[in-house]
Amino acid sequence: MSFRHLVRLLSQHETQYSLLQSLKSMEATLSRPPLSFFRRTPPLRLLFTLSLPPLLLASRRLLVSSCAQGSDGGRFVARPSSELRRGISETSANTSRGEDEKLISLRQIFSRPDVAIDAYIVPSQDAHQSEFIAECFMRRAYLTGFTGSAGTAVVTKDKAAFWTDGRYFLQAEKELSRDWTLMRSGTPGVPTTTEWLNYILPPGAQIGIDPFLFSFDAAEELKQEISKKNHQLILLKEFNLVDEIWKESRPEPPNKPTRVHDIKYAGADVASKLSYLRSQLSENGCTAIVVSMLDEVAWLLNMRGSDVPHSPVFYGYLVVGLDQATLFIDTRKVTKEVLTHLTSVGVQLKPYHSILAEVESLALKGTKLWLDSSSVNAAIVSVFRSACERYSTELNNNSSNQNIHYGGPDAVYKVSPVALAKAVKNNAEIEGMKNAHLRDAAALAEFWCWLEKEIENNVTLTEVDVADKLLEFRQKQDFFIETSFDTISGYGANGAIIHYSPTPEDCSLVESKNLFLLDSGGQYVDGTTDITRTVHFGEPSKWQQECFTRVLQGHIAIDEAVFPERTPGFVLDVLARSSLWKVGLDYRHGTGHGVGAALNVHEGPQSISFRFGNLTALQKGMVVSNEPGYYEDNSFGIRIENLLLVKEANVPNAYGGIEYLGFEKLTFVPIQTKLVELSLLSPGEIKWLNDYHAQVWEKVSPLLHGEALDWLWKNTRPILS
Amino acid sequence: MSFRHLVRLLSQHETQYSLLQSLKSMEATLSRPPLSFFRRTPPLRLLFTLSLPPLLLASRRLLVSSCAQGSDGGRFVARPSSELRRGISETSANTSRGEDEKLISLRQIFSRPDVAIDAYIVPSQDAHQSEFIAECFMRRAYLTGFTGSAGTAVVTKDKAAFWTDGRYFLQAEKELSRDWTLMRSGTPGVPTTTEWLNYILPPGAQIGIDPFLFSFDAAEELKQEISKKNHQLILLKEFNLVDEIWKESRPEPPNKPTRVHDIKYAGADVASKLSYLRSQLSENGCTAIVVSMLDEVAWLLNMRGSDVPHSPVFYGYLVVGLDQATLFIDTRKVTKEVLTHLTSVGVQLKPYHSILAEVESLALKGTKLWLDSSSVNAAIVSVFRSACERYSTELNNNSSNQNIHYGGPDAVYKVSPVALAKAVKNNAEIEGMKNAHLRDAAALAEFWCWLEKEIENNVTLTEVDVADKLLEFRQKQDFFIETSFDTISGYGANGAIIHYSPTPEDCSLVESKNLFLLDSGGQYVDGTTDITRTVHFGEPSKWQQECFTRVLQGHIAIDEAVFPERTPGFVLDVLARSSLWKVGLDYRHGTGHGVGAALNVHEGPQSISFRFGNLTALQKGMVVSNEPGYYEDNSFGIRIENLLLVKEANVPNAYGGIEYLGFEKLTFVPIQTKLVELSLLSPGEIKWLNDYHAQVWEKVSPLLHGEALDWLWKNTRPILS
Repeated sequence: MSFRHLVRLLSQHETQYSLLQSLKSMEATLSRPPLSFFRRTPPLRLLFTLSLPPLLLASRRLLVSSCAQGSDGGRFVARPSSELRRGISETSANTSRGEDEKLISLRQIFSRPDVAIDAYIVPSQDAHQSEFIAECFMRRAYLTGFTGSAGTAVVTKDKAAFWTDGRYFLQAEKELSRDWTLMRSGTPGVPTTTEWLNYILPPGAQIGIDPFLFSFDAAEELKQEISKKNHQLILLKEFNLVDEIWKESRPEPPNKPTRVHDIKYAGADVASKLSYLRSQLSENGCTAIVVSMLDEVAWLLNMRGSDVPHSPVFYGYLVVGLDQATLFIDTRKVTKEVLTHLTSVGVQLKPYHSILAEVESLALKGTKLWLDSSSVNAAIVSVFRSACERYSTELNNNSSNQNIHYGGPDAVYKVSPVALAKAVKNNAEIEGMKNAHLRDAAALAEFWCWLEKEIENNVTLTEVDVADKLLEFRQKQDFFIETSFDTISGYGANGAIIHYSPTPEDCSLVESKNLFLLDSGGQYVDGTTDITRTVHFGEPSKWQQECFTRVLQGHIAIDEAVFPERTPGFVLDVLARSSLWKVGLDYRHGTGHGVGAALNVHEGPQSISFRFGNLTALQKGMVVSNEPGYYEDNSFGIRIENLLLVKEANVPNAYGGIEYLGFEKLTFVPIQTKLVELSLLSPGEIKWLNDYHAQVWEKVSPLLHGEALDWLWKNTRPILS
Repeated sequence: MSFRHLVRLLSQHETQYSLLQSLKSMEATLSRPPLSFFRRTPPLRLLFTLSLPPLLLASRRLLVSSCAQGSDGGRFVARPSSELRRGISETSANTSRGEDEKLISLRQIFSRPDVAIDAYIVPSQDAHQSEFIAECFMRRAYLTGFTGSAGTAVVTKDKAAFWTDGRYFLQAEKELSRDWTLMRSGTPGVPTTTEWLNYILPPGAQIGIDPFLFSFDAAEELKQEISKKNHQLILLKEFNLVDEIWKESRPEPPNKPTRVHDIKYAGADVASKLSYLRSQLSENGCTAIVVSMLDEVAWLLNMRGSDVPHSPVFYGYLVVGLDQATLFIDTRKVTKEVLTHLTSVGVQLKPYHSILAEVESLALKGTKLWLDSSSVNAAIVSVFRSACERYSTELNNNSSNQNIHYGGPDAVYKVSPVALAKAVKNNAEIEGMKNAHLRDAAALAEFWCWLEKEIENNVTLTEVDVADKLLEFRQKQDFFIETSFDTISGYGANGAIIHYSPTPEDCSLVESKNLFLLDSGGQYVDGTTDITRTVHFGEPSKWQQECFTRVLQGHIAIDEAVFPERTPGFVLDVLARSSLWKVGLDYRHGTGHGVGAALNVHEGPQSISFRFGNLTALQKGMVVSNEPGYYEDNSFGIRIENLLLVKEANVPNAYGGIEYLGFEKLTFVPIQTKLVELSLLSPGEIKWLNDYHAQVWEKVSPLLHGEALDWLWKNTRPILS
């Protein structure tokens, strides 16, 4: 069946289908990187109606080359992303007043006959839409010198512009050379990248991208937007232009060994996971799927790696057919143990860079290929579509009757079935999460005990010192691997910066005059944690107490919520805000994101957010964060975050004959009662706080001794109403 | 611009637009009849992608003929819809065992050369998608003998089937003749009308409808569904087949005089309303609009009528152009006063039945016509489209260059701008609503006082007696016109039937052994009311008290909600359910609907519902009901309903620099404290109840004296925690 057939079929499904699809793609998009959790532009939904110009789809030389030698053994730890970014920053020379050398070099490539473009877009992504990426893929950071996590660079023959959001305006002003124009996204009058391109380029320009770095949906959206000015999107998949100028100084792709994720933590073996995935293929009339999200690959294969900071994943694509499965990976990362593990379940290995050739051959085999176009990159999708079209044309030419329905290859665009399967944790994963959270709680108790004493003794400590010390406490715990994201250690006004990440060169002292917000998490072999506490080491103001208490009331309302099965997370969001809204306060981020089991700290498809596009129901076994907050610019920030497990609620009735669900806490760290304005709390809320602290004591005290145990005792005493 | 151009333009707006459009059309659909408030199938969204076969669009003789003589003067009161239905029921002879005579007569028409159909669908609608309809349009009731408010009849040459929902299964079993098959909608295995037609008819059948009785969207959805079996939809707009067999016994169309709605209640004059509407036309590139919803016509023209029960509206279409406006109405209904009123603002009159001719002539004048295809009927839209196509073809034939862009007529499909304007009440409308509610509260206090005494004295009273007596008390109030819907007077198990409507032949006694639910409302010259109270005249069980208290907690949570501007109503819905969910209870209807100011008791576009398709924000000046409930089948029903006005909340902060909104109560009638389980309420909830009762006393006591005043005093005393 050709693509045109697909389009027709889809439109017969009516807009009802398209609406659902839109919302699904929205939910998939909303739930991925942390940026998407906090702010995200509406996603593209044109994926079914556009086709790429065939000339761009012709087979070319591939970007992804096999990597240089050198492995440093079996350590799990990757460098934290902040450190990676700092490394890149040091190599950039963007402080000069004259013309930026990297821009000159990049523009020289524009006119090469095999390139021939008028502009090039450099996003922050890797080829897998990862939240945290390896150093060698930090092309945007290398080109611009800007080391923040989010931003898009666009270079034309005579202009260079860089888009980033409010979190990074100051940092970008410092780090960009004078040849860059800073585009403050979200500020009135600031154009989007495509609006800018449509404005500054004469009609019919050629705009190049590396199609590995855009999901197919994102590339289609881009193409559609620039077509308004008759610009063409050029998919340059043979090489990345930034890599061409980065040359020898470009770090090598990561090649640390992968490992097997023990069945006692994984809970389900690879055979049964693949079997489930194949049943999904059959049900959807597909014969294969390309899995490209790194956490999905790791989850399906019960493997872990350390290619990127904060997430125990490894670079690879997995192609699963009805009776074979192939992992595309730098084979140097495959240890004997992993090889035995994979061979036993019939998973073959192929080089990472051979994925495009494989996709092409799948088309020639007549594969009905499941592609999640919101995550699979435009290089893979366009190669497959191009191969399908060629194959269809050949068949049509050979057939005398054009109406004969032949069984040609075809793409089926659907949200990956792995995301939901991975989000619903099994008993072993839940057990691992619970155990990891108790060890994490012990580390945090020791940490808070230490910090309180240091502050009391007037020891000078920066936000970074504090974060480093927290890491030390976590490192003492069994099974600890690394932080699950860059620690947000924000004192006073810095606490109001939602994604604040202090650097040694530019951070505050932690003192006793204002609130201190600490959002951190750990990757353990058996689980992943994410916790925020806000404390005051001196005397909080009445106003701070009121704000803290209203945030706490929102936190309690989510924690205590009971809801019928099939309820999407956004339905609950208002419970977290209601107490703040009562006095005209609010916060500008979602209330909860999914969390992986010994995997990504942010995962989909579920969320709890005021953005009501995500229709995914909260289901038994899912893990979500519960993190309402309040932020007063230039003053202080408050956030209280626990992780919650969705489970059956213990209710006496079952109206409608359905299940009612609720939450079980995973996080057990005291909440500072000094910050609570008791008169605002209802008796039920006071009971919640006292019950929680009783549980914290009961569960965490066995893991502590000495001063930390005393600290825990003192900080889990009931408050009286 | 041709229709094809429009389709192309729309698809360029991307699916983003289509999503919005879908949700808008959903919201428009969801908010109309009361059925839509409680249960509704997803609406059609294919409106832009299909075209009707041109042969169906050829001009034919029109259905709507001018009416017979006879007016009975200026009384405002129309017969209640229950009475109208009973009248029709009596004339039907569907109790015989042999073949149904109406079906025989109807089928004889099928084979007439000017009809030539294999099946005919008879819906419950009139030509304006009204919630309450005039007797002469109750064709479905006449044909089937079924007198309930909802249902669809489908007749083929040898079968007759009738679809209705769970509320009406028992009633339909009683009222339908043996020749009808009852289709219990929503029961597993029961097909929809179109599934049934596709199953029983051989491919390529001709299925007829009266296109006046289907919105254009509904007709398109139908067409699409039956096309799966290659059936064709035949729009028989010359005559209604049921009218053909109804003949002389068919009641005459209503012809009672209309009246001017005084500016002191309307608050804005017709000139300014038309001026606003014209600015909307200009902004949207339109030169005219067809307004077909009866409440929109009445609101725009500051006119009221009594053509249908429960709503002070009159049958008419309004066509507004940039510098003229024409009301299509049976001119016998236009008094001298109304004529003067209309003439002064330049509104012309034309006969009601000339609307199709007008629409045709609009096309020939090159009009860009705004059509809300979710409410404007398929007869009007198809005639306009057909005329547009003819005009375009002529122009194309006369033009040597096909690429020349000519300024031909065109349809612009958008939700009517009148609905939102009407929903946001001005100060005079708010004042009228408040005054009407106080008088209504006085009537209810007198009523409850009377009823309590009667029950105490063991007087035998049926649910109908009680409803009739309530009407008497309302009738004593100034400006009362009629009930705003059929009173739901449900004792015991009947209270669990959400749309229960007792009849004298089949209703319970009201006693002191169980709960009594009373949902009623009044139409006053200055406002519209809708209130539900649930009481127990004896000793409620602990369980009933718990359920009542949880419903009350939901009611209080909505009442006290504060929310940022732009919040859609569905965001608040969870607040109404949260306390019920905590113990595994719920209710299967929405929490709030819009209410008109001296207009329809159910209006859009806003709502508060678990159906999150309605993205309309709650805005200052809107009126919504707050009516959570709980229903235990075969046992009892609980509902507590007040009307609320959306207004600016009095909050000390304004995070985000935006407005925070809240509610002001319009309804002031005591809530029975005997039913409250105090231990479940928080101190804040107890305070709410006491404050409310203090307000009730303060506002309503001046309107009462004697026993009713005593009753009010007793029933507004604070409860102690």
